[in-house]
Amino acid sequence: MQTVDFNSDMGESFGAWTIGDGVDAELMTFISSANVATGFHAGDPGTMRRTVEQAKRLGVAVGAHPGFHDLVGFGRRHIQAPAQELVDDMLYQLGALREIARAQGVRLQHFKPHGALYMHLARDEEAARLLVENLQRVEPELLLYCMPGSVICSIAQQLGQPVIREFYADRAYDLSGSIVFTRNVQAYDPAVVAARVLRACQDGVVRTVEEEDLAIEFDSICLHSDTPGALDLAEATRGALDNAGIRVVAPR
Amino acid sequence: MQTVDFNSDMGESFGAWTIGDGVDAELMTFISSANVATGFHAGDPGTMRRTVEQAKRLGVAVGAHPGFHDLVGFGRRHIQAPAQELVDDMLYQLGALREIARAQGVRLQHFKPHGALYMHLARDEEAARLLVENLQRVEPELLLYCMPGSVICSIAQQLGQPVIREFYADRAYDLSGSIVFTRNVQAYDPAVVAARVLRACQDGVVRTVEEEDLAIEFDSICLHSDTPGALDLAEATRGALDNAGIRVVAPR
Amino acid sequence: MQTVDFNSDMGESFGAWTIGDGVDAELMTFISSANVATGFHAGDPGTMRRTVEQAKRLGVAVGAHPGFHDLVGFGRRHIQAPAQELVDDMLYQLGALREIARAQGVRLQHFKPHGALYMHLARDEEAARLLVENLQRVEPELLLYCMPGSVICSIAQQLGQPVIREFYADRAYDLSGSIVFTRNVQAYDPAVVAARVLRACQDGVVRTVEEEDLAIEFDSICLHSDTPGALDLAEATRGALDNAGIRVVAPR
Amino acid sequence: MQTVDFNSDMGESFGAWTIGDGVDAELMTFISSANVATGFHAGDPGTMRRTVEQAKRLGVAVGAHPGFHDLVGFGRRHIQAPAQELVDDMLYQLGALREIARAQGVRLQHFKPHGALYMHLARDEEAARLLVENLQRVEPELLLYCMPGSVICSIAQQLGQPVIREFYADRAYDLSGSIVFTRNVQAYDPAVVAARVLRACQDGVVRTVEEEDLAIEFDSICLHSDTPGALDLAEATRGALDNAGIRVVAPR
Repeated sequence: MQTVDFNSDMGESFGAWTIGDGVDAELMTFISSANVATGFHAGDPGTMRRTVEQAKRLGVAVGAHPGFHDLVGFGRRHIQAPAQELVDDMLYQLGALREIARAQGVRLQHFKPHGALYMHLARDEEAARLLVENLQRVEPELLLYCMPGSVICSIAQQLGQPVIREFYADRAYDLSGSIVFTRNVQAYDPAVVAARVLRACQDGVVRTVEEEDLAIEFDSICLHSDTPGALDLAEATRGALDNAGIRVVAPR
Repeated sequence: MQTVDFNSDMGESFGAWTIGDGVDAELMTFISSANVATGFHAGDPGTMRRTVEQAKRLGVAVGAHPGFHDLVGFGRRHIQAPAQELVDDMLYQLGALREIARAQGVRLQHFKPHGALYMHLARDEEAARLLVENLQRVEPELLLYCMPGSVICSIAQQLGQPVIREFYADRAYDLSGSIVFTRNVQAYDPAVVAARVLRACQDGVVRTVEEEDLAIEFDSICLHSDTPGALDLAEATRGALDNAGIRVVAPR
Repeated sequence: MQTVDFNSDMGESFGAWTIGDGVDAELMTFISSANVATGFHAGDPGTMRRTVEQAKRLGVAVGAHPGFHDLVGFGRRHIQAPAQELVDDMLYQLGALREIARAQGVRLQHFKPHGALYMHLARDEEAARLLVENLQRVEPELLLYCMPGSVICSIAQQLGQPVIREFYADRAYDLSGSIVFTRNVQAYDPAVVAARVLRACQDGVVRTVEEEDLAIEFDSICLHSDTPGALDLAEATRGALDNAGIRVVAPR
Repeated sequence: MQTVDFNSDMGESFGAWTIGDGVDAELMTFISSANVATGFHAGDPGTMRRTVEQAKRLGVAVGAHPGFHDLVGFGRRHIQAPAQELVDDMLYQLGALREIARAQGVRLQHFKPHGALYMHLARDEEAARLLVENLQRVEPELLLYCMPGSVICSIAQQLGQPVIREFYADRAYDLSGSIVFTRNVQAYDPAVVAARVLRACQDGVVRTVEEEDLAIEFDSICLHSDTPGALDLAEATRGALDNAGIRVVAPR
C-alpha cells in the first residue's frame, strides 16, 4: 500500500459549546478527509462553514457526516424510525453541507453517517438500500464511507455507489471482524496505535482481542476525534505513515 | 400584463402536526410557484419531500422558504443575530431543500425568506447584502422573491441577483407602499380579493387604507396559505385571472 | 361498578400547530382526567397553561403526560437511552407542568407517560423501577396510570405508589390481555365503542380479536384524543355511562 | 458588611458538550449560591440533576436560571416574544428544576433569568410585572436575583417579592450604574478583581470606566463562570473575603 486516506470527524461543536475546537484546527493538519457534522447530532451552520473553510485552507477533502436527529444524545442513541424518514433526514443534512461548501467553492467528496446511524445502516438492509438508491439519484460518484462487510457496503457495491472501506485506528477488533465497542473510550498509547495502523497498511492484518491476527482490507484509516488524546494519536499515526513512505491522500 | 406568477407558502406541517395539509394539495392546483418551508420554522425532511413530489406532479415551480430557527414561534418572532449567522442558517436550509428536490429530479426556481426573517432582510442592509453576495456565489440565477422597494430588493438588483417583486393579495397597503400587518389575519371576501388582484394586474394600482390609489409594480402575486379561507381566495383569484386572459405561469 | 374515571390526552398542540385544539375544549366536557402533554413530544408552555385553565374551569383533574424528547416523532419512536436519562427527562417534564398548574392553583392528580415511553416502561424493569423510586421521593401519592399487568404496574404496587389501571376504549385486545397496536388507527362506530366500554364496566369483560371474552379489571377508561372521530366516541361513551348510572369521576 | 452571598452560573453543559464542567466542581467550592441552567439555553435534565447533587454535597444554595428558548444562541440572542409567552417559558423551567431538586431533597432558594432574558426583564415592564405576579402566586418567598435599579427590581420590591441585588465582579460599570457589556469577555487579574469586590463590600463603592467612584448597594456578588479564568477569579475573591472576615453565605 503506497497511499492511504486518513479520516476523522470534524465540526462537532454546537453554538457556544465546543468539542475538539482547539483540537480540530491541529488535527486537520494530519488527515486527508474530514467528516463534517451536519447539525442533527452536532454542528451548526456557522460551525459547518468554519470547518469547511479550514479544510479548504489545508487541502483536506470534505464529506457530510449526518446523524440521528438527537442533539442531547449526540447521535449515539438509536431511534426507531422508518427507512424513508431516515433517508429524508440524511438527504436534508447532505444538502445543507453541500450548499455551505459550495459557497466556499468546495465540492463534497464523501458521505459518512455518524454514530448510531452508522451502525444502523451497517445492519438494516431496508434503510441501507433506500439510502444508496437515493445517493445514486443525487450523486452516483459520491464516495460512501463504510465498514467492510457491512450491509450498506455490499449494497453500495452492488448498486454501483463507490465505497471507501474503513480501518478503525482506535477501536478493538474481534476475530469475526467486528469492532468491539466500549462505553468508555480508552486512551491509547500513540506509539501502539501508530504501529497498529502501520501494520494494517503494510501487512493487511490486525491483532484481535482474541490475540490472533485477522486479515483486513481497507481504503481509509478512521481516527475518532473524541477519543482521548486524539491529537497525539493522529500525530503519531501520521508520522509513522510518513516515515514508512506511505502517502496520506484523499481518495479523490 | 399577459402573464403573472402566483406564489404561496407550502409544506408548513411538522411531524404529526399539519398546517394546510388538506389545503396544500388543493391550493397547489391554483398557483405557479410554491415556497417550501425548510425545517427551521416549519417543515421537516419528509414533509419537504412530499411537498416537492406534489409540486412536481402539478408542474408547480419550487423555491426554498427559510425562516428563523424557531419552531415554537413559527418563524414569526424576530431573533437578534449577526448577519453571518443568519446567512449560514439560510444557506443550510436552501441546500437541504435543494438536495431533497434533486432526489426527485426537481431544480429549485427561487428563494424567499419567511415571516420575521423576510421582514428583517427587507430592512437590514448588512444581512441583506451578505445573503445576496452568497446567493451570487452559490447560484446567481436563483430568483429572489422580495417586497418592491425593500433593502434586499435594491441590493439584489444592484449585485445582479434576479428579483421577483411581490404583490400581497391578502394584505392591506398604505400610501407609503408598506403593507400593514394585522395581528389577527382577517378572512376576506374571495370576490373582493380576486377583484383587487385583477385590478393590480390590469391597471397597476391598489386601493390603500387611506382610500386612495397607489401605483404598484410586481411580478408575482403572493397569497398566504394560512390566511383564513385561503383555498377560496386562491380559487377565486385564479378564476378571475383565467377569465381575464392573464396566464398564471412561474417566472422560469 | 358505580363510578369510573375517564381519561384522555390533552394539550398536544405545539406553537402554531394544533392537534385536537377545536376538539380539546369539547372533549374535555366528557372526561374526568386530562393527561397534559409536557413539551418533549408535544405541548409548549403556553399550550400547557391554557389546557390547565380549561381543565380547571371544567373540574377535570390534571396529570402530567411526559414523552420521549422527540417533537418530530411525536414521542412515537423508541429512543434507546439509559434508565437514568429517561427518569431525569420525566421528572423535568413533571415539574414543568406542576409549576404551571400551581400558578393556576391546580394540584396535579396523576402521571401517565406517552406513546413509546409508556410502552417502554410497561416492559423495561430498570427504567420502571427507577421512575417509581423517584416518584416515591417527589410525591408518593401521585397516581400512576398504567396498563394492568405491565412491569411498571407491578413495581408501583410493590413499592406503594398508587396505580390507576386503564382500559383502552379504542384499542383491540388479544387473549393474552395485550392491546394490539395498529399503525393506522381506525375510526370506530361510536355506538360499538360505547357498548364495549359499558360491558367492560358492568361485566368486567372485553371481546378479544380471537372472538372470545377476556376478564379485565381497571380503574379508568382511556380514549385517545387522536383517534379519528374521538369527539363522537367520547360523547357516545359518556352518554352510555350516564344512562347506565355509572358516575364518571376522577379517582381523587 | 459582615456577610455576603457569592453566586455563579452552573450546569451549563448540554448532552456531550461541557462548559465549565471541570470548572463547576471546583468553582462551586468558592460560592454560596448556584444558578442552575434549566434546559432552554443550556443544561439538560441529567446535567441539572448532577449539578443539584453537587451543590447539595457542598452546601451551596440552588436557584433556577431560565433563559430564552435558544440552545444554539446560548440564550444570548434577544427573541421578540409576548410577555405571557416568556413567563410561561420561565415557569416551565422553574418547575423542571424544582422537581429535579425535590427528588434530591433540595429546596430551591432563588430565581435568576439568564443572559438576554435577564436584560429584557431589567427593561421591559410588562414582562417583568407578569413574571413577578406569577412568582407571587407560585412562591412569594422565592428570592429574585436582579440588577439594582432595574425595572424588575422595582416591581418585585413593590409587589413584595424579595430581591437579591447583584454586584458583578467581572463587569465594568459606568457612572450611570449600568454595566458595560463587552463582546469579548476579557480575562482579568485575579488580584484586581478580588480587591475590587472587597472594596465594594467594605466601602460600598466601585471605580467606573470614567475613573470615578460610584456608590453601590448589593446583597450578592456575581461572577460569571464563563469569564476566562473564572476559577482563579473565584478563588482570589473568596480568599480576599475570608481574609477580611466577611462570611460568604447564601441569603437563606
